[in-house]
Amino acid sequence: MKENLSNKIIRVSAIQMKMTKDSEKNLSNSLRLIKKAAQEEKADLICLPELFSLQYFCQTEEPGNFSMSEPVPGPTTHALELLAEELNITLVASLFERRAQGVYHNTAVVIDGKYGYLGKYRKMHIPDEPGYQEKFYFTPGDLGFKSFKTSVGNCGVMVCWDQWYPEAARLTALNGAQILIYPTAIGWHPEEKNILGQTQHEAWELVQRSHAVTNGCFVIAVNRVGFEKHPSKQSGIEFWGQSFVAAPDGRVLARASSADTNILTVDLDMAEIKKSRLGWPFLRDRRIDAYEDLTKRLID
Amino acid sequence: MKENLSNKIIRVSAIQMKMTKDSEKNLSNSLRLIKKAAQEEKADLICLPELFSLQYFCQTEEPGNFSMSEPVPGPTTHALELLAEELNITLVASLFERRAQGVYHNTAVVIDGKYGYLGKYRKMHIPDEPGYQEKFYFTPGDLGFKSFKTSVGNCGVMVCWDQWYPEAARLTALNGAQILIYPTAIGWHPEEKNILGQTQHEAWELVQRSHAVTNGCFVIAVNRVGFEKHPSKQSGIEFWGQSFVAAPDGRVLARASSADTNILTVDLDMAEIKKSRLGWPFLRDRRIDAYEDLTKRLID
Repeated sequence: MKENLSNKIIRVSAIQMKMTKDSEKNLSNSLRLIKKAAQEEKADLICLPELFSLQYFCQTEEPGNFSMSEPVPGPTTHALELLAEELNITLVASLFERRAQGVYHNTAVVIDGKYGYLGKYRKMHIPDEPGYQEKFYFTPGDLGFKSFKTSVGNCGVMVCWDQWYPEAARLTALNGAQILIYPTAIGWHPEEKNILGQTQHEAWELVQRSHAVTNGCFVIAVNRVGFEKHPSKQSGIEFWGQSFVAAPDGRVLARASSADTNILTVDLDMAEIKKSRLGWPFLRDRRIDAYEDLTKRLID
Repeated sequence: MKENLSNKIIRVSAIQMKMTKDSEKNLSNSLRLIKKAAQEEKADLICLPELFSLQYFCQTEEPGNFSMSEPVPGPTTHALELLAEELNITLVASLFERRAQGVYHNTAVVIDGKYGYLGKYRKMHIPDEPGYQEKFYFTPGDLGFKSFKTSVGNCGVMVCWDQWYPEAARLTALNGAQILIYPTAIGWHPEEKNILGQTQHEAWELVQRSHAVTNGCFVIAVNRVGFEKHPSKQSGIEFWGQSFVAAPDGRVLARASSADTNILTVDLDMAEIKKSRLGWPFLRDRRIDAYEDLTKRLID
Protein backbone atom coordinates (compact mmCIF):
# COMPACT_ATOMS: atom_id res chain seq x y z
CA MET A 1 0.00 0.00 0.00
CA LYS A 2 1.12 3.50 -0.75
CA GLU A 3 2.19 5.35 2.38
CA ASN A 4 -0.28 8.17 1.73
CA LEU A 5 -3.17 5.71 2.04
CA SER A 6 -2.45 5.28 5.73
CA ASN A 7 -4.15 8.58 6.52
CA LYS A 8 -6.97 8.23 4.04
CA ILE A 9 -10.67 7.95 4.75
CA ILE A 10 -12.03 4.84 3.02
CA ARG A 11 -15.75 4.52 2.51
CA VAL A 12 -16.95 0.95 2.80
CA SER A 13 -20.28 -0.65 1.95
CA ALA A 14 -21.21 -4.09 3.25
CA ILE A 15 -24.10 -5.43 1.18
CA GLN A 16 -26.41 -7.48 3.36
CA MET A 17 -28.63 -9.44 0.98
CA LYS A 18 -31.43 -11.99 0.85
CA MET A 19 -30.93 -14.73 -1.76
CA THR A 20 -33.54 -16.38 -3.95
CA LYS A 21 -33.37 -19.79 -5.63
CA ASP A 22 -32.63 -18.06 -8.93
CA SER A 23 -28.87 -17.44 -9.14
CA GLU A 24 -29.19 -15.19 -12.20
CA LYS A 25 -31.56 -13.01 -10.25
CA ASN A 26 -29.20 -12.97 -7.24
CA LEU A 27 -26.34 -11.92 -9.46
CA SER A 28 -28.27 -9.13 -11.17
CA ASN A 29 -29.58 -7.99 -7.80
CA SER A 30 -25.99 -7.86 -6.50
CA LEU A 31 -24.82 -5.85 -9.49
CA ARG A 32 -27.64 -3.39 -8.89
CA LEU A 33 -26.76 -3.06 -5.19
CA ILE A 34 -23.07 -2.62 -5.99
CA LYS A 35 -23.95 0.20 -8.40
CA LYS A 36 -26.16 1.80 -5.82
CA ALA A 37 -23.45 1.60 -3.13
CA ALA A 38 -20.87 3.08 -5.50
CA GLN A 39 -22.99 5.78 -7.10
CA GLU A 40 -25.38 6.83 -4.34
CA GLU A 41 -23.35 6.06 -1.26
CA LYS A 42 -19.97 6.79 -2.88
CA ALA A 43 -18.34 3.63 -1.50
CA ASP A 44 -14.69 2.88 -2.34
CA LEU A 45 -14.76 -0.71 -1.08
CA ILE A 46 -17.82 -2.95 -1.48
CA CYS A 47 -18.20 -6.39 0.13
CA LEU A 48 -20.74 -9.09 -0.68
CA PRO A 49 -21.82 -11.98 1.60
CA GLU A 50 -20.54 -15.54 1.33
CA LEU A 51 -21.74 -17.38 -1.82
CA PHE A 52 -23.69 -14.27 -2.78
CA SER A 53 -25.25 -15.65 -5.94
CA LEU A 54 -26.69 -18.79 -4.31
CA GLN A 55 -28.96 -19.87 -1.56
CA TYR A 56 -26.98 -21.63 1.13
CA PHE A 57 -27.07 -25.09 -0.43
CA CYS A 58 -24.97 -26.72 2.32
CA GLN A 59 -27.95 -27.55 4.53
CA THR A 60 -27.88 -31.01 2.93
CA GLU A 61 -25.36 -33.19 1.14
CA GLU A 62 -26.68 -33.23 -2.41
CA PRO A 63 -24.32 -34.19 -5.24
CA GLY A 64 -26.45 -32.28 -7.74
CA ASN A 65 -25.42 -29.04 -6.07
CA PHE A 66 -21.92 -29.26 -7.52
CA SER A 67 -23.41 -28.16 -10.84
CA MET A 68 -23.78 -24.68 -9.33
CA SER A 69 -20.01 -24.28 -9.07
CA GLU A 70 -18.01 -22.16 -11.51
CA PRO A 71 -14.41 -21.48 -12.44
CA VAL A 72 -12.63 -18.68 -10.54
CA PRO A 73 -11.67 -16.48 -12.28
CA GLY A 74 -14.51 -17.03 -14.74
CA PRO A 75 -17.65 -15.43 -16.14
CA THR A 76 -18.88 -14.07 -12.80
CA THR A 77 -15.57 -12.53 -11.79
CA HIS A 78 -15.30 -11.12 -15.31
CA ALA A 79 -18.66 -9.37 -14.94
CA LEU A 80 -17.55 -8.04 -11.56
CA GLU A 81 -14.26 -6.84 -13.03
CA LEU A 82 -16.06 -4.80 -15.68
CA LEU A 83 -18.34 -3.29 -13.06
CA ALA A 84 -15.48 -2.50 -10.65
CA GLU A 85 -13.61 -0.76 -13.43
CA GLU A 86 -16.66 1.21 -14.52
CA LEU A 87 -17.42 2.32 -10.95
CA ASN A 88 -13.78 2.64 -9.85
CA ILE A 89 -14.30 0.55 -6.73
CA THR A 90 -12.64 -2.33 -4.93
CA LEU A 91 -14.85 -5.39 -4.60
CA VAL A 92 -14.81 -8.50 -2.42
CA ALA A 93 -17.04 -11.38 -3.50
CA SER A 94 -17.43 -15.04 -2.60
CA LEU A 95 -18.02 -17.87 -5.05
CA PHE A 96 -18.45 -21.65 -5.24
CA GLU A 97 -15.26 -22.50 -7.11
CA ARG A 98 -14.95 -25.51 -9.41
CA ARG A 99 -11.25 -26.25 -9.57
CA ALA A 100 -11.53 -29.70 -11.09
CA GLN A 101 -14.10 -32.46 -11.13
CA GLY A 102 -14.13 -33.59 -7.52
CA VAL A 103 -12.25 -30.57 -6.16
CA TYR A 104 -14.33 -27.56 -5.18
CA HIS A 105 -13.60 -24.60 -2.89
CA ASN A 106 -15.42 -21.89 -1.02
CA THR A 107 -13.50 -19.01 -2.53
CA ALA A 108 -13.37 -15.24 -2.11
CA VAL A 109 -11.99 -12.90 -4.75
CA VAL A 110 -10.64 -9.38 -4.60
CA ILE A 111 -11.21 -7.22 -7.64
CA ASP A 112 -9.93 -3.70 -8.02
CA GLY A 113 -11.31 -1.06 -10.38
CA LYS A 114 -7.83 0.11 -11.16
CA TYR A 115 -5.74 -3.06 -10.91
CA GLY A 116 -8.30 -5.64 -12.05
CA TYR A 117 -8.62 -9.15 -10.63
CA LEU A 118 -6.11 -9.34 -7.77
CA GLY A 119 -6.52 -12.95 -6.76
CA LYS A 120 -8.44 -15.35 -4.60
CA TYR A 121 -8.52 -16.78 -1.12
CA ARG A 122 -9.81 -20.29 -0.55
CA LYS A 123 -11.64 -20.79 2.76
CA MET A 124 -9.19 -22.53 5.05
CA HIS A 125 -11.42 -23.61 7.96
CA ILE A 126 -14.38 -25.69 6.82
CA PRO A 127 -17.29 -26.28 9.20
CA ASP A 128 -19.42 -29.37 9.42
CA GLU A 129 -22.42 -29.19 11.66
CA PRO A 130 -26.10 -30.01 11.29
CA GLY A 131 -27.31 -27.64 8.57
CA TYR A 132 -23.80 -26.53 7.61
CA GLN A 133 -22.47 -29.61 5.77
CA GLU A 134 -19.57 -27.82 4.18
CA LYS A 135 -16.98 -30.57 4.45
CA PHE A 136 -19.01 -32.45 1.83
CA TYR A 137 -18.69 -29.60 -0.66
CA PHE A 138 -15.48 -27.71 -0.03
CA THR A 139 -11.91 -28.92 -0.05
CA PRO A 140 -10.03 -26.92 2.61
CA GLY A 141 -8.10 -24.04 1.04
CA ASP A 142 -4.49 -24.51 0.01
CA LEU A 143 -3.48 -20.92 -0.67
CA GLY A 144 -2.85 -19.96 2.94
CA PHE A 145 -3.85 -16.66 4.54
CA LYS A 146 -3.58 -13.65 2.29
CA SER A 147 -3.58 -9.91 2.12
CA PHE A 148 -4.26 -8.12 -1.17
CA LYS A 149 -2.83 -4.74 -2.11
CA THR A 150 -5.78 -2.73 -3.41
CA SER A 151 -6.55 0.88 -4.21
CA VAL A 152 -8.06 1.29 -0.75
CA GLY A 153 -5.26 -0.37 1.24
CA ASN A 154 -4.27 -3.88 2.20
CA CYS A 155 -7.34 -6.09 2.39
CA GLY A 156 -7.26 -9.48 4.06
CA VAL A 157 -10.13 -11.77 3.15
CA MET A 158 -11.33 -14.81 5.04
CA VAL A 159 -14.68 -16.60 4.90
CA CYS A 160 -17.27 -17.32 7.62
CA TRP A 161 -16.00 -20.22 9.81
CA ASP A 162 -12.52 -18.65 9.60
CA GLN A 163 -14.04 -15.97 11.83
CA TRP A 164 -13.60 -18.19 14.87
CA TYR A 165 -9.87 -18.68 14.40
CA PRO A 166 -7.52 -16.06 15.87
CA GLU A 167 -4.73 -17.83 14.00
CA ALA A 168 -6.35 -16.89 10.68
CA ALA A 169 -6.82 -13.24 11.61
CA ARG A 170 -3.29 -13.04 12.97
CA LEU A 171 -1.62 -14.56 9.92
CA THR A 172 -3.64 -12.31 7.65
CA ALA A 173 -2.60 -9.26 9.66
CA LEU A 174 1.04 -10.39 9.73
CA ASN A 175 0.80 -10.48 5.93
CA GLY A 176 0.06 -6.79 6.04
CA ALA A 177 -3.74 -6.58 6.10
CA GLN A 178 -5.25 -3.39 7.43
CA ILE A 179 -8.84 -4.45 6.87
CA LEU A 180 -10.07 -7.98 7.64
CA ILE A 181 -13.12 -8.86 5.55
CA TYR A 182 -15.38 -11.81 6.32
CA PRO A 183 -18.07 -12.75 3.77
CA THR A 184 -20.42 -14.86 5.86
CA ALA A 185 -23.52 -17.04 5.90
CA ILE A 186 -24.48 -17.65 9.51
CA GLY A 187 -27.85 -17.91 11.14
CA TRP A 188 -30.09 -19.42 13.73
CA HIS A 189 -31.77 -22.78 13.76
CA PRO A 190 -35.30 -21.52 14.54
CA GLU A 191 -35.87 -24.36 17.00
CA GLU A 192 -33.02 -23.20 19.25
CA LYS A 193 -33.12 -19.46 18.58
CA ASN A 194 -35.10 -18.51 21.68
CA ILE A 195 -32.67 -20.16 24.05
CA LEU A 196 -29.30 -19.83 22.31
CA GLY A 197 -29.82 -17.14 19.69
CA GLN A 198 -28.60 -14.09 21.54
CA THR A 199 -25.53 -15.80 22.98
CA GLN A 200 -24.60 -17.25 19.59
CA HIS A 201 -24.82 -13.90 17.86
CA GLU A 202 -22.93 -12.13 20.64
CA ALA A 203 -20.11 -14.71 20.54
CA TRP A 204 -19.85 -14.29 16.77
CA GLU A 205 -19.59 -10.53 16.96
CA LEU A 206 -17.23 -10.34 19.92
CA VAL A 207 -14.76 -12.82 18.48
CA GLN A 208 -14.43 -10.75 15.33
CA ARG A 209 -14.19 -7.51 17.28
CA SER A 210 -11.38 -9.15 19.23
CA HIS A 211 -9.53 -9.81 15.96
CA ALA A 212 -9.76 -6.07 15.31
CA VAL A 213 -8.32 -5.28 18.74
CA THR A 214 -5.55 -7.86 18.92
CA ASN A 215 -4.32 -7.08 15.40
CA GLY A 216 -5.06 -3.36 15.16
CA CYS A 217 -7.15 -3.83 11.99
CA PHE A 218 -10.60 -2.84 10.81
CA VAL A 219 -13.03 -5.76 10.54
CA ILE A 220 -15.92 -6.01 8.08
CA ALA A 221 -18.36 -8.90 8.50
CA VAL A 222 -20.97 -9.24 5.73
CA ASN A 223 -23.79 -11.68 6.37
CA ARG A 224 -26.94 -12.64 4.49
CA VAL A 225 -30.50 -12.36 5.83
CA GLY A 226 -33.71 -14.25 5.36
CA PHE A 227 -35.05 -17.72 6.08
CA GLU A 228 -33.90 -20.50 3.76
CA LYS A 229 -35.85 -23.69 4.12
CA HIS A 230 -34.18 -27.08 4.44
CA PRO A 231 -34.97 -29.04 1.25
CA SER A 232 -36.64 -31.94 3.02
CA LYS A 233 -37.37 -30.93 6.61
CA GLN A 234 -39.74 -28.46 8.18
CA SER A 235 -36.77 -26.51 9.53
CA GLY A 236 -34.12 -24.36 7.89
CA ILE A 237 -31.79 -21.48 8.72
CA GLU A 238 -32.76 -17.96 9.64
CA PHE A 239 -29.67 -16.03 8.58
CA TRP A 240 -29.08 -13.42 11.25
CA GLY A 241 -27.73 -10.50 9.22
CA GLN A 242 -26.23 -7.94 11.62
CA SER A 243 -23.35 -7.30 9.28
CA PHE A 244 -21.02 -4.90 11.03
CA VAL A 245 -17.83 -2.90 10.80
CA ALA A 246 -15.45 -2.67 13.76
CA ALA A 247 -12.59 -0.25 14.34
CA PRO A 248 -9.06 -1.29 15.37
CA ASP A 249 -9.94 -0.56 19.00
CA GLY A 250 -12.95 -2.90 18.79
CA ARG A 251 -15.69 -0.24 18.57
CA VAL A 252 -18.64 -1.24 16.39
CA LEU A 253 -18.83 1.60 13.87
CA ALA A 254 -22.04 0.37 12.25
CA ARG A 255 -24.30 -2.66 12.45
CA ALA A 256 -27.15 -3.75 10.17
CA SER A 257 -30.40 -5.24 11.44
CA SER A 258 -31.11 -8.96 11.74
CA ALA A 259 -33.81 -9.03 9.08
CA ASP A 260 -33.47 -6.30 6.47
CA THR A 261 -31.50 -6.18 3.26
CA ASN A 262 -29.20 -3.27 3.73
CA ILE A 263 -26.28 -1.39 2.26
CA LEU A 264 -24.27 -0.70 5.40
CA THR A 265 -21.96 2.19 4.62
CA VAL A 266 -19.31 3.57 6.93
CA ASP A 267 -16.13 5.64 6.68
CA LEU A 268 -12.89 4.08 7.89
CA ASP A 269 -10.31 6.57 9.10
CA MET A 270 -7.20 4.61 8.23
CA ALA A 271 -5.14 6.70 10.69
CA GLU A 272 -6.93 4.79 13.46
CA ILE A 273 -4.82 1.73 12.67
CA LYS A 274 -1.60 3.49 13.59
CA LYS A 275 -3.18 5.08 16.63
CA SER A 276 -4.35 1.72 17.95
CA ARG A 277 -1.12 -0.09 17.20
CA LEU A 278 0.95 2.56 18.96
CA GLY A 279 -1.44 2.91 21.88
CA TRP A 280 -1.53 -0.80 22.65
CA PRO A 281 1.48 -2.25 20.80
CA PHE A 282 0.50 -5.90 20.93
CA LEU A 283 2.38 -6.93 17.81
CA ARG A 284 5.64 -5.73 19.40
CA ASP A 285 5.44 -8.15 22.29
CA ARG A 286 4.36 -11.43 20.68
CA ARG A 287 6.47 -14.30 22.08
CA ILE A 288 7.32 -15.80 18.72
CA ASP A 289 9.98 -17.92 20.42
CA ALA A 290 7.23 -19.70 22.36
CA TYR A 291 4.49 -20.22 19.76
CA GLU A 292 5.82 -23.27 18.00
CA ASP A 293 3.24 -25.61 19.50
CA LEU A 294 0.43 -23.71 17.80
CA THR A 295 1.01 -26.15 14.95
CA LYS A 296 -0.09 -29.02 17.20
CA ARG A 297 -3.61 -30.37 17.42
CA LEU A 298 -3.36 -30.68 21.19
CA ILE A 299 -0.42 -30.72 23.58
CA ASP A 300 -1.13 -34.02 25.25
CA MET B 1 -8.22 -34.06 35.79
CA LYS B 2 -10.43 -36.87 36.92
CA GLU B 3 -13.16 -37.61 34.42
CA ASN B 4 -15.88 -37.10 37.03
CA LEU B 5 -14.83 -33.47 37.45
CA SER B 6 -16.08 -32.69 33.96
CA ASN B 7 -19.67 -32.61 35.22
CA LYS B 8 -18.92 -30.91 38.50
CA ILE B 9 -20.09 -27.49 39.66
CA ILE B 10 -17.05 -25.47 40.74
CA ARG B 11 -17.60 -22.41 42.91
CA VAL B 12 -15.12 -19.66 42.12
CA SER B 13 -14.33 -16.43 43.95
CA ALA B 14 -12.39 -13.64 42.26
CA ILE B 15 -11.09 -11.28 44.93
CA GLN B 16 -11.12 -7.73 43.64
CA MET B 17 -8.95 -5.72 46.06
CA LYS B 18 -7.58 -2.27 46.72
CA MET B 19 -3.90 -2.23 47.73
CA THR B 20 -2.19 0.01 50.28
CA LYS B 21 1.48 0.93 50.48
CA ASP B 22 1.90 -1.54 53.33
CA SER B 23 2.54 -4.98 51.86
CA GLU B 24 2.11 -6.75 55.21
CA LYS B 25 -1.31 -5.20 55.47
CA ASN B 26 -2.17 -6.22 51.89
CA LEU B 27 -1.13 -9.77 52.63
CA SER B 28 -3.13 -10.03 55.84
CA ASN B 29 -6.09 -8.42 54.10
CA SER B 30 -5.82 -11.02 51.33
CA LEU B 31 -5.70 -13.88 53.80
CA ARG B 32 -8.81 -12.52 55.48
CA LEU B 33 -10.65 -12.23 52.16
CA ILE B 34 -9.58 -15.73 51.12
CA LYS B 35 -10.96 -17.08 54.41
CA LYS B 36 -14.19 -15.20 53.89
CA ALA B 37 -14.57 -16.49 50.33
CA ALA B 38 -13.91 -20.05 51.45
CA GLN B 39 -15.95 -20.08 54.64
CA GLU B 40 -18.84 -17.75 53.93
CA GLU B 41 -19.15 -18.07 50.16
CA LYS B 42 -17.99 -21.70 50.04
CA ALA B 43 -15.60 -21.13 47.13
CA ASP B 44 -13.55 -24.06 45.80
CA LEU B 45 -11.23 -21.90 43.67
CA ILE B 46 -10.05 -18.47 44.78
CA CYS B 47 -8.12 -16.04 42.58
CA LEU B 48 -6.20 -12.92 43.63
CA PRO B 49 -5.25 -9.97 41.40
CA GLU B 50 -1.81 -9.43 39.87
CA LEU B 51 0.90 -8.57 42.43
CA PHE B 52 -1.74 -8.73 45.15
CA SER B 53 0.52 -7.79 48.05
CA LEU B 54 1.90 -4.63 46.44
CA GLN B 55 0.79 -1.36 44.99
CA TYR B 56 1.48 -1.32 41.27
CA PHE B 57 5.09 -0.11 41.49
CA CYS B 58 5.67 -0.22 37.72
CA GLN B 59 4.42 3.33 37.12
CA THR B 60 8.10 4.39 37.29
CA GLU B 61 11.48 2.75 36.81
CA GLU B 62 12.89 2.75 40.34
CA PRO B 63 15.73 0.34 41.15
CA GLY B 64 14.80 0.43 44.85
CA ASN B 65 11.57 -1.42 44.01
CA PHE B 66 13.44 -4.67 43.39
CA SER B 67 13.76 -5.01 47.16
CA MET B 68 10.05 -5.86 47.24
CA SER B 69 10.65 -9.07 45.27
CA GLU B 70 10.66 -12.47 46.93
CA PRO B 71 11.57 -16.06 46.14
CA VAL B 72 8.83 -18.23 44.63
CA PRO B 73 8.14 -20.61 46.25
CA GLY B 74 9.00 -18.80 49.48
CA PRO B 75 7.49 -17.40 52.66
CA THR B 76 4.37 -15.98 50.98
CA THR B 77 3.54 -19.10 49.01
CA HIS B 78 4.18 -21.11 52.17
CA ALA B 79 1.63 -19.06 54.10
CA LEU B 80 -0.83 -19.51 51.23
CA GLU B 81 -0.17 -23.25 51.19
CA LEU B 82 -1.06 -23.57 54.85
CA LEU B 83 -4.22 -21.56 54.32
CA ALA B 84 -5.25 -23.51 51.22
CA GLU B 85 -4.81 -26.77 53.11
CA GLU B 86 -6.75 -25.52 56.11
CA LEU B 87 -9.63 -24.27 53.94
CA ASN B 88 -9.43 -27.07 51.36
CA ILE B 89 -9.37 -24.67 48.42
CA THR B 90 -7.41 -24.11 45.22
CA LEU B 91 -5.68 -20.74 45.09
CA VAL B 92 -4.17 -18.64 42.31
CA ALA B 93 -1.89 -15.79 43.39
CA SER B 94 0.57 -13.47 41.69
CA LEU B 95 3.95 -12.43 43.08
CA PHE B 96 7.03 -10.36 42.25
CA GLU B 97 9.55 -13.18 41.92
CA ARG B 98 13.24 -12.76 42.68
CA ARG B 99 14.97 -15.52 40.74
CA ALA B 100 18.49 -14.13 41.03
CA GLN B 101 20.07 -10.74 41.44
CA GLY B 102 19.22 -9.03 38.19
CA VAL B 103 16.59 -11.57 37.10
CA TYR B 104 13.03 -10.97 38.28
CA HIS B 105 9.68 -12.23 37.02
CA ASN B 106 6.01 -11.42 37.24
CA THR B 107 4.91 -14.83 38.43
CA ALA B 108 1.65 -16.56 39.23
CA VAL B 109 1.40 -19.63 41.43
CA VAL B 110 -1.20 -22.35 41.74
CA ILE B 111 -1.66 -23.87 45.18
CA ASP B 112 -4.01 -26.70 45.98
CA GLY B 113 -5.41 -27.53 49.39
CA LYS B 114 -5.01 -31.22 48.70
CA TYR B 115 -1.92 -31.38 46.48
CA GLY B 116 0.03 -28.40 47.84
CA TYR B 117 2.15 -26.05 45.73
CA LEU B 118 1.60 -27.11 42.11
CA GLY B 119 3.96 -24.75 40.37
CA LYS B 120 4.32 -21.37 38.80
CA TYR B 121 3.78 -19.53 35.55
CA ARG B 122 6.03 -16.63 34.62
CA LYS B 123 4.30 -13.84 32.68
CA MET B 124 5.31 -14.31 29.06
CA HIS B 125 4.15 -11.05 27.46
CA ILE B 126 5.58 -8.00 29.18
CA PRO B 127 4.08 -4.56 28.49
CA ASP B 128 5.92 -1.29 28.39
CA GLU B 129 3.83 1.81 28.10
CA PRO B 130 3.65 5.10 29.95
CA GLY B 131 2.70 4.13 33.50
CA TYR B 132 3.24 0.40 32.90
CA GLN B 133 7.07 0.18 32.76
CA GLU B 134 7.18 -3.57 33.19
CA LYS B 135 10.04 -4.32 30.83
CA PHE B 136 12.31 -2.61 33.36
CA TYR B 137 11.27 -4.98 36.12
CA PHE B 138 10.29 -8.31 34.63
CA THR B 139 12.30 -10.70 32.50
CA PRO B 140 9.89 -12.34 30.06
CA GLY B 141 8.82 -15.77 31.30
CA ASP B 142 10.74 -18.86 30.21
CA LEU B 143 8.39 -21.58 31.41
CA GLY B 144 6.00 -21.42 28.46
CA PHE B 145 2.22 -21.64 28.70
CA LYS B 146 0.91 -23.98 31.34
CA SER B 147 -2.09 -25.79 32.67
CA PHE B 148 -2.13 -27.12 36.22
CA LYS B 149 -4.06 -30.19 37.36
CA THR B 150 -5.90 -29.10 40.49
CA SER B 151 -8.70 -30.43 42.67
CA VAL B 152 -11.16 -28.27 40.73
CA GLY B 153 -9.99 -29.15 37.23
CA ASN B 154 -7.27 -28.04 34.85
CA CYS B 155 -6.41 -24.41 35.52
CA GLY B 156 -4.41 -22.35 33.04
CA VAL B 157 -2.89 -19.20 34.46
CA MET B 158 -1.66 -16.18 32.56
CA VAL B 159 -1.05 -12.63 33.76
CA CYS B 160 -2.52 -9.29 32.59
CA TRP B 161 -0.85 -8.29 29.28
CA ASP B 162 -1.06 -11.96 28.24
CA GLN B 163 -4.80 -11.25 28.02
CA TRP B 164 -4.34 -9.61 24.64
CA TYR B 165 -2.66 -12.61 23.02
CA PRO B 166 -4.88 -15.30 21.51
CA GLU B 167 -1.71 -17.37 21.08
CA ALA B 168 -1.31 -17.53 24.88
CA ALA B 169 -4.90 -18.55 25.52
CA ARG B 170 -4.76 -21.14 22.73
CA LEU B 171 -1.53 -22.77 23.90
CA THR B 172 -2.83 -22.88 27.46
CA ALA B 173 -6.04 -24.52 26.26
CA LEU B 174 -4.14 -26.97 24.07
CA ASN B 175 -2.25 -27.92 27.23
CA GLY B 176 -5.57 -29.02 28.69
CA ALA B 177 -6.82 -25.97 30.56
CA GLN B 178 -10.54 -25.80 31.24
CA ILE B 179 -10.39 -22.52 33.13
CA LEU B 180 -8.20 -19.61 31.99
CA ILE B 181 -7.31 -17.34 34.90
CA TYR B 182 -5.89 -13.84 34.45
CA PRO B 183 -4.63 -11.99 37.55
CA THR B 184 -4.56 -8.40 36.34
CA ALA B 185 -3.66 -4.81 37.15
CA ILE B 186 -5.19 -2.58 34.51
CA GLY B 187 -6.73 0.84 34.75
CA TRP B 188 -7.38 4.21 33.26
CA HIS B 189 -5.10 7.18 33.01
CA PRO B 190 -7.52 9.75 34.51
CA GLU B 191 -6.54 12.34 31.90
CA GLU B 192 -7.80 10.14 29.03
CA LYS B 193 -10.59 8.26 30.80
CA ASN B 194 -13.46 10.43 29.57
CA ILE B 195 -12.57 9.94 25.93
CA LEU B 196 -11.03 6.46 25.80
CA GLY B 197 -12.12 4.80 29.02
CA GLN B 198 -15.19 2.95 27.92
CA THR B 199 -13.63 1.68 24.68
CA GLN B 200 -10.51 0.51 26.51
CA HIS B 201 -12.49 -1.42 29.09
CA GLU B 202 -14.77 -2.92 26.46
CA ALA B 203 -11.81 -4.08 24.34
CA TRP B 204 -10.24 -5.67 27.39
CA GLU B 205 -13.36 -7.60 28.31
CA LEU B 206 -14.30 -8.69 24.81
CA VAL B 207 -10.85 -10.03 23.96
CA GLN B 208 -10.93 -12.26 27.03
CA ARG B 209 -14.48 -13.37 26.33
CA SER B 210 -13.30 -14.30 22.86
CA HIS B 211 -10.62 -16.55 24.40
CA ALA B 212 -13.46 -18.33 26.22
CA VAL B 213 -15.39 -18.80 22.97
CA THR B 214 -12.58 -19.81 20.66
CA ASN B 215 -11.14 -22.30 23.15
CA GLY B 216 -14.29 -23.52 24.89
CA CYS B 217 -12.95 -22.58 28.33
CA PHE B 218 -14.15 -20.58 31.30
CA VAL B 219 -12.29 -17.30 31.79
CA ILE B 220 -11.69 -15.57 35.12
CA ALA B 221 -10.19 -12.06 35.08
CA VAL B 222 -9.29 -10.62 38.49
CA ASN B 223 -8.38 -6.95 38.59
CA ARG B 224 -7.56 -4.51 41.36
CA VAL B 225 -9.45 -1.28 42.11
CA GLY B 226 -8.56 2.12 43.49
CA PHE B 227 -6.44 5.07 42.45
CA GLU B 228 -2.68 4.68 42.89
CA LYS B 229 -0.79 7.93 42.55
CA HIS B 230 2.32 8.24 40.40
CA PRO B 231 5.29 8.77 42.74
CA SER B 232 6.37 12.07 41.22
CA LYS B 233 3.58 13.35 38.99
CA GLN B 234 0.09 14.63 39.64
CA SER B 235 -1.33 11.72 37.71
CA GLY B 236 -1.59 7.99 38.43
CA ILE B 237 -3.71 4.99 37.53
CA GLU B 238 -7.35 4.44 38.38
CA PHE B 239 -7.55 0.64 38.32
CA TRP B 240 -10.83 -0.24 36.68
CA GLY B 241 -11.87 -3.35 38.59
CA GLN B 242 -14.74 -5.04 36.73
CA SER B 243 -13.31 -8.45 37.40
CA PHE B 244 -15.48 -10.95 35.59
CA VAL B 245 -16.13 -14.58 34.85
CA ALA B 246 -17.10 -15.72 31.34
CA ALA B 247 -18.57 -19.04 30.24
CA PRO B 248 -17.23 -21.14 27.33
CA ASP B 249 -19.86 -19.59 25.05
CA GLY B 250 -18.69 -16.09 25.97
CA ARG B 251 -21.53 -15.14 28.35
CA VAL B 252 -20.46 -12.93 31.23
CA LEU B 253 -21.63 -14.90 34.27
CA ALA B 254 -20.71 -12.20 36.77
CA ARG B 255 -18.97 -8.84 36.76
CA ALA B 256 -17.76 -6.71 39.67
CA SER B 257 -18.06 -2.91 39.76
CA SER B 258 -15.33 -0.51 38.69
CA ALA B 259 -14.73 0.91 42.16
CA ASP B 260 -15.61 -1.49 44.97
CA THR B 261 -13.58 -4.19 46.64
CA ASN B 262 -15.56 -7.30 46.04
CA ILE B 263 -15.57 -11.04 46.40
CA LEU B 264 -17.10 -12.02 43.07
CA THR B 265 -18.46 -15.53 43.50
CA VAL B 266 -19.99 -17.63 40.75
CA ASP B 267 -20.68 -21.30 40.05
CA LEU B 268 -19.06 -22.86 36.98
CA ASP B 269 -20.99 -25.77 35.51
CA MET B 270 -18.07 -27.70 34.08
CA ALA B 271 -20.42 -29.59 31.73
CA GLU B 272 -20.71 -26.35 29.76
CA ILE B 273 -17.21 -26.89 28.39
CA LYS B 274 -18.19 -30.09 26.63
CA LYS B 275 -21.44 -28.57 25.44
CA SER B 276 -19.64 -25.60 23.89
CA ARG B 277 -16.88 -27.66 22.33
CA LEU B 278 -19.36 -30.05 20.73
CA GLY B 279 -21.75 -27.32 19.65
CA TRP B 280 -19.10 -25.27 17.90
CA PRO B 281 -16.15 -27.67 17.44
CA PHE B 282 -13.48 -25.09 16.66
CA LEU B 283 -10.57 -27.17 17.96
CA ARG B 284 -11.42 -29.91 15.44
CA ASP B 285 -10.90 -27.68 12.42
CA ARG B 286 -7.72 -25.76 13.23
CA ARG B 287 -5.45 -25.72 10.16
CA ILE B 288 -2.31 -26.77 11.98
CA ASP B 289 -0.65 -27.43 8.62
CA ALA B 290 -0.92 -23.70 7.84
CA TYR B 291 0.01 -22.04 11.14
CA GLU B 292 3.78 -22.25 10.96
CA ASP B 293 4.24 -18.54 10.25
CA LEU B 294 2.74 -17.66 13.62
CA THR B 295 6.30 -17.89 14.88
CA LYS B 296 7.25 -14.93 12.67
CA ARG B 297 7.24 -11.33 13.81
CA LEU B 298 5.73 -10.19 10.51
CA ILE B 299 5.43 -11.84 7.12
CA ASP B 300 7.12 -9.17 5.06
